[in-house]
Amino acid sequence: MYPNILRHPGPTPIPKKVELAMAQNMISHRSEEFVKLYRETTERVKPVFGTKQDILLLPSGGTAAMEAAVVNIASPGDEVVVVTVGAFGDYFVSICEKYGLKVHQLQKEWGEACTKEELGDFLKPLSNIKAVFATYNETSTGVLNPVGQLGEAVREHSDALYIVDGVSAIGGAPAEMDEWGIDILVTGSQKAMMLPPGLALLSVSDKAWKVIESNGSAAAYYLNLLSYREWAEKGMTPNTPAVSLIMGLSAVCDLIDEEGGFSKTVERHEVMKNMVRKSMNALSIDLLTTEENASPTITAIRTPEGLDLASYIGHLKKTYHLDFAGGLGPLQGKIFRFGHMGYCFPSDILEAVSLMEAGLQDFSYPFEPGAGVKAAQEVYLSSLRKS
Amino acid sequence: MYPNILRHPGPTPIPKKVELAMAQNMISHRSEEFVKLYRETTERVKPVFGTKQDILLLPSGGTAAMEAAVVNIASPGDEVVVVTVGAFGDYFVSICEKYGLKVHQLQKEWGEACTKEELGDFLKPLSNIKAVFATYNETSTGVLNPVGQLGEAVREHSDALYIVDGVSAIGGAPAEMDEWGIDILVTGSQKAMMLPPGLALLSVSDKAWKVIESNGSAAAYYLNLLSYREWAEKGMTPNTPAVSLIMGLSAVCDLIDEEGGFSKTVERHEVMKNMVRKSMNALSIDLLTTEENASPTITAIRTPEGLDLASYIGHLKKTYHLDFAGGLGPLQGKIFRFGHMGYCFPSDILEAVSLMEAGLQDFSYPFEPGAGVKAAQEVYLSSLRKS
Repeated sequence: MYPNILRHPGPTPIPKKVELAMAQNMISHRSEEFVKLYRETTERVKPVFGTKQDILLLPSGGTAAMEAAVVNIASPGDEVVVVTVGAFGDYFVSICEKYGLKVHQLQKEWGEACTKEELGDFLKPLSNIKAVFATYNETSTGVLNPVGQLGEAVREHSDALYIVDGVSAIGGAPAEMDEWGIDILVTGSQKAMMLPPGLALLSVSDKAWKVIESNGSAAAYYLNLLSYREWAEKGMTPNTPAVSLIMGLSAVCDLIDEEGGFSKTVERHEVMKNMVRKSMNALSIDLLTTEENASPTITAIRTPEGLDLASYIGHLKKTYHLDFAGGLGPLQGKIFRFGHMGYCFPSDILEAVSLMEAGLQDFSYPFEPGAGVKAAQEVYLSSLRKS
Repeated sequence: MYPNILRHPGPTPIPKKVELAMAQNMISHRSEEFVKLYRETTERVKPVFGTKQDILLLPSGGTAAMEAAVVNIASPGDEVVVVTVGAFGDYFVSICEKYGLKVHQLQKEWGEACTKEELGDFLKPLSNIKAVFATYNETSTGVLNPVGQLGEAVREHSDALYIVDGVSAIGGAPAEMDEWGIDILVTGSQKAMMLPPGLALLSVSDKAWKVIESNGSAAAYYLNLLSYREWAEKGMTPNTPAVSLIMGLSAVCDLIDEEGGFSKTVERHEVMKNMVRKSMNALSIDLLTTEENASPTITAIRTPEGLDLASYIGHLKKTYHLDFAGGLGPLQGKIFRFGHMGYCFPSDILEAVSLMEAGLQDFSYPFEPGAGVKAAQEVYLSSLRKS
């Protein structure tokens, strides 16, 4: 009866308009209707990536798109650099190692971002690096890496391809793939893109296409990007695509238009980020990341002092139907994660902070009830006055 | 305004109940709700595979599941046998070759099935065969291979794994994975399973798991089946699964129960197959396959004599909103394909045959109007009297 308030890092809530779009009558993936849908939708989604390149749609999760980015450009023995700042950076390491690449890992503490200088210093002594991999938004820590600046470091110190995992960022965070020199940018549907899981979006620079073309040994069949490119020219995909999710993606593009364009969507995420952060400050609850590295889509909140975290987030779920995610790996028990991406609005932040406060009262946590909500309101009101 | 009558080999129409199930509120893939959904649904779908083994759910198309079946069991240089009777058998060849396997191809004419004797004779002189691949229902020709009997040939002549592509069969054709000695059976969601594309279903025998365990060199990351098995024990998947499609799959299981169990679903497909075939006989329009090899989910119909096929099926689509698929490869222009799988009923067959007849009249094709429909009705009525 009570709705679950899903404030997870993904999957995230689906707009009614998207649900209904996905429930349209099924069409053949070899029909004119599909070609029209495919061409229009992949064109409309380009601003979300900040690219003039084509957007490819894979019927898979974001992880498969990350794997596609690896397997299409590299061969066993190739040397790559992976910047890791959390669990999802480690994914790239695992994928590269699975394919026999030699990985130079620039590993940062969980909760920190990587700076341009650090990446520059790391790249300086290395040569023959095929690609540099980085995570834009580290879902496990709520760190937004400065991928634009990291791209400068890549260009200054190497000829490597620059490959970015945009899962949990793209759709909520600003992205300028072309301007930032990103050669492959990938994301999944179920985070800030307001869709159910099952569709991966991916874009490839001209430079990366040249590498892919010459990389004859690419082992993958389903994830063969040349085959996706070949079929995309006809407005289709090599195998049966996730038709209903593409119908949903078209509705997502409508919603972004309704909001006033993607820059407005980015502004909303920025407001929500600030609402969450200011409210936690007001409650004297610590955040994992600094202001500078803070993600606009997810905030990692440290366990309020003296509280048993599992009991607290279990209580929020059970009593208030407020669904947060815990910490991963070394941060388990130390943080919880508040997702504020995709189909999420300032009103949702006020709701969640209010319920968090109610839960804190249940645990007799010492704080001034209303203080968190008040701080969040102030951010919201101030953003409305500006716009 | 006019609804498109999708009589394609897939994607196929989605039941309203499934559409609505997929529009339920999104849930976390790490929640108790998901674990319950996953465990119950994978258990309920077992009769559709005819297995006691676990069913694994991959967020991908059926092609990815075929690739998973290859990459998890074999290493470059391994020898395999692929039985090909059409375009989708050729997929297996391409995938195996992509991974550097040595392929012995038992190639049949498009439109024919492979017999137990043929496979036995083919296997006799070979040794060290790692796996034998076969297509259950060849979507390009509407041939149903006798995969139960082919399994006997595999066991009699080798220790090879027996791997079957069940896409476009599973959910409509009888399947006895365990009894037929199938070691890996894969299918996709968008054919007879009544779901949109984007979910692959796969089951693995104990014998195949042993091979997968010892096949340390498996290159794939996203398609690593050991990782799926490990997470399945916890009622989850290694990466974000296609949550909404799994909600839809649960509704599909409800529909199968409502029909009276999967054997009733199989009977309905048999009736539809016979309705289509008898009606074409009555119209003196030839079929590609013999009665013995005929698929219960799709029928390949030869171009009616003297008709230009592209004009005819274009006219059916444009005027009557009846959407058939043409032929592939060598059969282009020579056949069209009438899909009758999944959410398709005898009433749909009567509708489609009636519209086909209307179209034939528009082309002044010499036939007795009503003869095809009458023959289809007879099959339908006779099936009702029997049940």
